[in-house]
Amino acid sequence: MPSDVTVDHELSDADENIHSAWDNSLDPVLTVEPGDVVRFECRDALDGQVGRNSTAEDLANASFDPVHPLTGPVHVEGAEPGDVLEVELLDFEHKGWGFTGFMPGEMGLGLLPEDFEEAGLHVWDLDDDVGHFVDGIEVPLDMFPGTIGNAPAEDGEHDTLPPRDVGGNMDVKHMTAGSTVYLPVEVDGALFSTGDCHAAQGDGEVCVTGIEAPMFVTARFDVRKDLDIEQPQLETSGPFTPTGRDEPMYATTGIADDLMEATKKAVRHMIDHLHDHRDLTRGEAYILCSAAVDLKISEVVDAPNWTVTAYLPESIFPE
Amino acid sequence: MPSDVTVDHELSDADENIHSAWDNSLDPVLTVEPGDVVRFECRDALDGQVGRNSTAEDLANASFDPVHPLTGPVHVEGAEPGDVLEVELLDFEHKGWGFTGFMPGEMGLGLLPEDFEEAGLHVWDLDDDVGHFVDGIEVPLDMFPGTIGNAPAEDGEHDTLPPRDVGGNMDVKHMTAGSTVYLPVEVDGALFSTGDCHAAQGDGEVCVTGIEAPMFVTARFDVRKDLDIEQPQLETSGPFTPTGRDEPMYATTGIADDLMEATKKAVRHMIDHLHDHRDLTRGEAYILCSAAVDLKISEVVDAPNWTVTAYLPESIFPE
Repeated sequence: MPSDVTVDHELSDADENIHSAWDNSLDPVLTVEPGDVVRFECRDALDGQVGRNSTAEDLANASFDPVHPLTGPVHVEGAEPGDVLEVELLDFEHKGWGFTGFMPGEMGLGLLPEDFEEAGLHVWDLDDDVGHFVDGIEVPLDMFPGTIGNAPAEDGEHDTLPPRDVGGNMDVKHMTAGSTVYLPVEVDGALFSTGDCHAAQGDGEVCVTGIEAPMFVTARFDVRKDLDIEQPQLETSGPFTPTGRDEPMYATTGIADDLMEATKKAVRHMIDHLHDHRDLTRGEAYILCSAAVDLKISEVVDAPNWTVTAYLPESIFPE
Repeated sequence: MPSDVTVDHELSDADENIHSAWDNSLDPVLTVEPGDVVRFECRDALDGQVGRNSTAEDLANASFDPVHPLTGPVHVEGAEPGDVLEVELLDFEHKGWGFTGFMPGEMGLGLLPEDFEEAGLHVWDLDDDVGHFVDGIEVPLDMFPGTIGNAPAEDGEHDTLPPRDVGGNMDVKHMTAGSTVYLPVEVDGALFSTGDCHAAQGDGEVCVTGIEAPMFVTARFDVRKDLDIEQPQLETSGPFTPTGRDEPMYATTGIADDLMEATKKAVRHMIDHLHDHRDLTRGEAYILCSAAVDLKISEVVDAPNWTVTAYLPESIFPE
């Protein structure tokens, strides 16, 4: 926590502060003034169904009813439809562990459900700076909220899985401490909630989970009536590579006449690379892609074929 | 040029060394041994139709018949179908200028042809390290070949616009000096060509041109029979941000249920941002996006909506 930050409000992860659908009829659990700082305790995305000693089978049998448990909603005084909620992300604290896994089959989740018949899971020990994978691989941590958003104007309960104009499950890995996120306001008070925190994630979050971890999130709120945005925007300084500076990467390309197919090809080629040259199982490789491999759109203009590129930082491997 | 590099062969950009379609029946203009270093002189993508004093109208009237003029093909001894051609990129030298422009309308080129009625052009003065845009904006240079590839196995002439399994117009901005590119070989001798060089480009190359510049490219070739890849791969150390280290960025999101539509939204939001907050015309903003804004795939798993994010480095603006 920055030493000059004073927390004005604490919201624990007790049941009364948790909801698992976006719904503008929910009563706010807290009302704050612009400038106030709130420390949110956030549950993990599966609401405790996977723990330190869980297996892939536990993950495969998890219920999606509680997904995602979000902390909130917070009513911000003065926020009106058409305004922008400014959320300054000040601090993140994990609780020492997290998990990354995939659940193929009938759920159809993740980028490559057709490539994996069985679920896979890795439970990470998290230090201050890194998470520990297999074979001495260490993934640098830079925590962020996978889900951060306001209540939508449309009445009723809305699934938390897809992101929307008001934000939500955007999984933008660059919303780290020091970043400022701008969220469109569609209802009085904004009705902000957050959760589904990740200790690290590759751009793309390809296997459908980052390093999912229960976490504290501290943020300062402001209401911006001078801004006019259609979807969320942010200021950030990364991370753009795990070490914070340009470093050696191995990259695969995916070339196809559909952008999603190009994305699948780039990730499949990276899984092949990790399997063939780094001795990982395909399941481990898929999990590592989701936690540490970044997807970039190299070109979307050389018709009819687009190029997506997947970047693996070499620094995560032991020397 | 690295001081320990000895150039074994020079290929000028004279007509006899230039071709503008991929075609495995073309006679090689040079035959090299594995380990040889070749210095290619490459024409710009429009083959000289746009020069230092050109206008947007000149660009709009350009013929696409000579696109892309490529230098080659080079026959690499010992390369056979199923092998991988290793191309170590050693050095790039531009000629002091370049251009970025867009040509909307009936050509339908670029990510947002429907947003612009008229063509736009910026001619850049290029220093060693930066290119000069309007209003004191300086874009750091890191040169690379927009097009780099081998001849495809399929007979006949193939348009150079789309990239393919053997590479081609991939526009991967990270194929800079010091990088190694791996290209699948589909015909005897590989029949390698390159050209369409960019002095800089944002991931995405959204307006259909990077900083297009005539350039010298120096590369070392090797044949790898121990590798088996379906599409190109590479080793690189970036650039991942213009300064080579994590730095402040402003980012817009694009959220939609189609990945291309999400990409368009992210870029449209960035054009709005550059217009509203940086006083650029929309055409200037579109050009700057293509030269300096990076597109990342934040998530492709939170069905039914995907998140694409566009990152603008603040360091390109004057203080």
